[in-house]
Amino acid sequence: MSREHFWAVIPAGGAGTRLWPLSRAGSPKFLHDLSGSGRSLLQSTWDRLEPLTGDRVVVVTGRAHEAAVRDQLPDLPADQLLAEPSPRDSMAAIGWAAAVLEARDPQAVLGSFAADHVIDDPEAFGRCVEAAVDAAADGFLVTIGIGPTYPATGFGYIEVGERLGDGPAHAVAEFVEKPDRARAEAYLATGRFRWNAGMFVVRASVLLDLLATWHPDLAQSLRTLAAQPGRLDELWPGLEKIAIDHAVAEPASRAGRVAVVPGTFGWDDVGDFASLGGLLPEADGMPGARILGNAADVRVVDSTGVVVPASGRLVAVVGLEDVVVVDTPDALLVMAKDRAQDVKSVVDALRAEGRTDLL
Amino acid sequence: MSREHFWAVIPAGGAGTRLWPLSRAGSPKFLHDLSGSGRSLLQSTWDRLEPLTGDRVVVVTGRAHEAAVRDQLPDLPADQLLAEPSPRDSMAAIGWAAAVLEARDPQAVLGSFAADHVIDDPEAFGRCVEAAVDAAADGFLVTIGIGPTYPATGFGYIEVGERLGDGPAHAVAEFVEKPDRARAEAYLATGRFRWNAGMFVVRASVLLDLLATWHPDLAQSLRTLAAQPGRLDELWPGLEKIAIDHAVAEPASRAGRVAVVPGTFGWDDVGDFASLGGLLPEADGMPGARILGNAADVRVVDSTGVVVPASGRLVAVVGLEDVVVVDTPDALLVMAKDRAQDVKSVVDALRAEGRTDLL
Repeated sequence: MSREHFWAVIPAGGAGTRLWPLSRAGSPKFLHDLSGSGRSLLQSTWDRLEPLTGDRVVVVTGRAHEAAVRDQLPDLPADQLLAEPSPRDSMAAIGWAAAVLEARDPQAVLGSFAADHVIDDPEAFGRCVEAAVDAAADGFLVTIGIGPTYPATGFGYIEVGERLGDGPAHAVAEFVEKPDRARAEAYLATGRFRWNAGMFVVRASVLLDLLATWHPDLAQSLRTLAAQPGRLDELWPGLEKIAIDHAVAEPASRAGRVAVVPGTFGWDDVGDFASLGGLLPEADGMPGARILGNAADVRVVDSTGVVVPASGRLVAVVGLEDVVVVDTPDALLVMAKDRAQDVKSVVDALRAEGRTDLL
Repeated sequence: MSREHFWAVIPAGGAGTRLWPLSRAGSPKFLHDLSGSGRSLLQSTWDRLEPLTGDRVVVVTGRAHEAAVRDQLPDLPADQLLAEPSPRDSMAAIGWAAAVLEARDPQAVLGSFAADHVIDDPEAFGRCVEAAVDAAADGFLVTIGIGPTYPATGFGYIEVGERLGDGPAHAVAEFVEKPDRARAEAYLATGRFRWNAGMFVVRASVLLDLLATWHPDLAQSLRTLAAQPGRLDELWPGLEKIAIDHAVAEPASRAGRVAVVPGTFGWDDVGDFASLGGLLPEADGMPGARILGNAADVRVVDSTGVVVPASGRLVAVVGLEDVVVVDTPDALLVMAKDRAQDVKSVVDALRAEGRTDLL
């Protein structure tokens, strides 16, 4: 399998509601620098893939974000940005990219990696992807399974089966949905389960053929779209709205067609502000404070466990524990860190009130 | 004693540091509406005194605030605003007004009331002031003593002595400095102590004559200033910097010249954000939330004891207890309510760093 047929696909979607008010519908999570690296999550994803693919990268995003993506990724070739007329879930997004790549290069292998995740060891990531590309060349749909660090209830899990050949790839015994806490603990205790981070590596033609087995109309429409791009607005609204996991990965795993390569790197989906806090280093001179951006704008006094994405305004926090302060030009969120998942209730209330200006 | 000789004096000074970042050096506490009434503390002070004095009101403020005071009090006659070249403490401020009034009306009685306090029953306040004016006509320096509602350590106390005549006035046995908690509790247990809110009612000439007894140079300079207003910038920097309590009230009380009228109204100096929270009503639909301003800008979810001066931006508070959120265009304070006195540490640090733009 030659590296020159390997393409990265970056689905750049999702509003990141649990990171409101930092992440907005008009300026979603993947466009933000949430690690303090100076690069947005999208740019960091590009940086991580570029050593593996050069500019063989396809980004799939919403039309509303097309200009921002081009602006952040000046080296992305113009015809490798696919702008969706509306959200049709991950199968349509990744399948569209697969069909475009299949038409361009019948031997293309694609690796799909979300635009808004953080990975702490790009070289280890690269080695895992290369192993996944090798397994994909053998006809497998290959996922990279993340080593679980705690009994998370917010992710799906992958049960690892028999080893395949002499590389790191194993068969997938089963994909399982987000478990409750007790089941998640049981999974970790077995040592056989990994998190499903939605990383798939597969030949473009294999992905579409698998899709054709269970969702023939969707596979046909995506291939038609690749051949006749002018029909986008006509065909897109009729595409089945389904996640790639349900459409292909789960049925293919039952057919013995899915492999998993164990990830040997740290991974985080920056799913909420508690997660963001865990990614940030402790600020100099302010023990217990995790600050994103310019720490000179933040004063943390007699407080622990404080997470502050700095805004440029002065933010002073006095005498508090485990609190998140998110300051933006038009909205301010002050929240107990253990309520990080509940931002959604504020966002839902604002939506119900028609305050779309703030969403 | 005719009412037409009674004048109100409003010293409008003090930055209100413990209300930072709402109160600033350039826009101090007295210029803000902190009760949600639609009127600033200064305007509310005017409103409370106007039934007693009409426009016989003198405001003493810093030159930096002269324009703002004139703007907020359009009915204040132009020559009744005294603008201090620099802060010289309360004796100089009130004594200057006394000297000006003495020159204008030798029978003038003045009542001095801070510009930044809140009083909950203006009619009861008016009755107390009238009783104080009567006692002042008899030559006393009369203070209005506030009924203590808790063993405060932040105020001086007045020990009430023998009754004077058949009105509500009593002799002052002693002025005592801010006590520690144990002494404050002991004071309250006796039933004889009242808070010193700095409210003094006295004939202008009596005040200056008493001052001349213990601080003859200061009394002389103030009378010279009233006679020769053109010498303000020459004389002002040489005035002794002393509080009216130390300069006159304490020594005069030892000389049997001070009376106290018990206040029969609720009073608050809005000294910090915890105090501010106590003055605000609970917001509709948000139990436990005290909001100053437009509650539609604030979302309080699963939180108790939250105090938010609304800013016009959306402020969302989720899952917190006893927290104060103060949002202003250039600075944000998030603070445990029981640390309300510690705002000063943030202000001091900013001053040390030369961030006068934020003070």
